Amino acid sequence: MKCIFCDIVAGKMPARTVYEDDQVVAFHDINPQAPTHVLIVPRAHIPRLQDAAEEQATLIGRLLLAANRVAERLGLDRSGYRVVINNGPDALQTVYHLHLHLLGGRRMSWPPG
Amino acid sequence: MKCIFCDIVAGKMPARTVYEDDQVVAFHDINPQAPTHVLIVPRAHIPRLQDAAEEQATLIGRLLLAANRVAERLGLDRSGYRVVINNGPDALQTVYHLHLHLLGGRRMSWPPG
Repeated sequence: MKCIFCDIVAGKMPARTVYEDDQVVAFHDINPQAPTHVLIVPRAHIPRLQDAAEEQATLIGRLLLAANRVAERLGLDRSGYRVVINNGPDALQTVYHLHLHLLGGRRMSWPPG
Repeated sequence: MKCIFCDIVAGKMPARTVYEDDQVVAFHDINPQAPTHVLIVPRAHIPRLQDAAEEQATLIGRLLLAANRVAERLGLDRSGYRVVINNGPDALQTVYHLHLHLLGGRRMSWPPG
C-alpha cells in the first residue's frame, strides 16, 4: 500500500529534511502550524503509536529524542517546543505512518487542540 | 527541590493512578482538557524532554508506550488519542518533571494549541 512517509524515507518523494539517522528521518511539514513545524518519523512503517510493540521501546525513544536534536539544530532549545502524536480518528491522525509533530517558534496555547 | 510529580511517584501526594510499572506512573490530570486527560511520568526526575540522555532512549520509549496501555485500559484504543509533551516556556511547560499528556474522549482540533 502506498505510504507517503515511506516514500520520503526512501527518497522517492522530496522533503525538506532537517535530520536523519539510521532509524529516524525528520523533515518540515508542508502545512506548518507554527514558525517551526517538523515531522519526525521512523524509517520502519509503523502505522500508529498503538501499533508499536514493547520490543520497539528503544526505537520509539529514539524517535522522541530525535525531537531534541532537531530542536537544537533549529535553535528552539531555549525557547521551547511542543511534541504531539496523533493516534487514530479522534486525534485527527491523517497519515498512517507514525509521526511526531515538533512545533516551536511561537507561544503555544492550551488546550492542545 | 520540591517536585509535585516526585511526590506523587513516592505516594506522598494523592493522585488518581490509572497505570504504573517499575519505571512509569500514570494518573488523571487535576485540570482535564478532555473527557480523558492522563499524565504519564517517569519515576526518575528528568526535568524536561530535552534533559533526557540518549542512554535513556528505552525509558523514554517505555514512557510513550505506556500511553498505549493507559488508552487500552480507558477504552480509547478504537476512538483514538493525542499525546502531547510540552518542553520549555513556548510550550507552556508548567511542572518541570517530564510528563506526557494523553487526551481522548472527544474529537481534538488542529493546530494543537
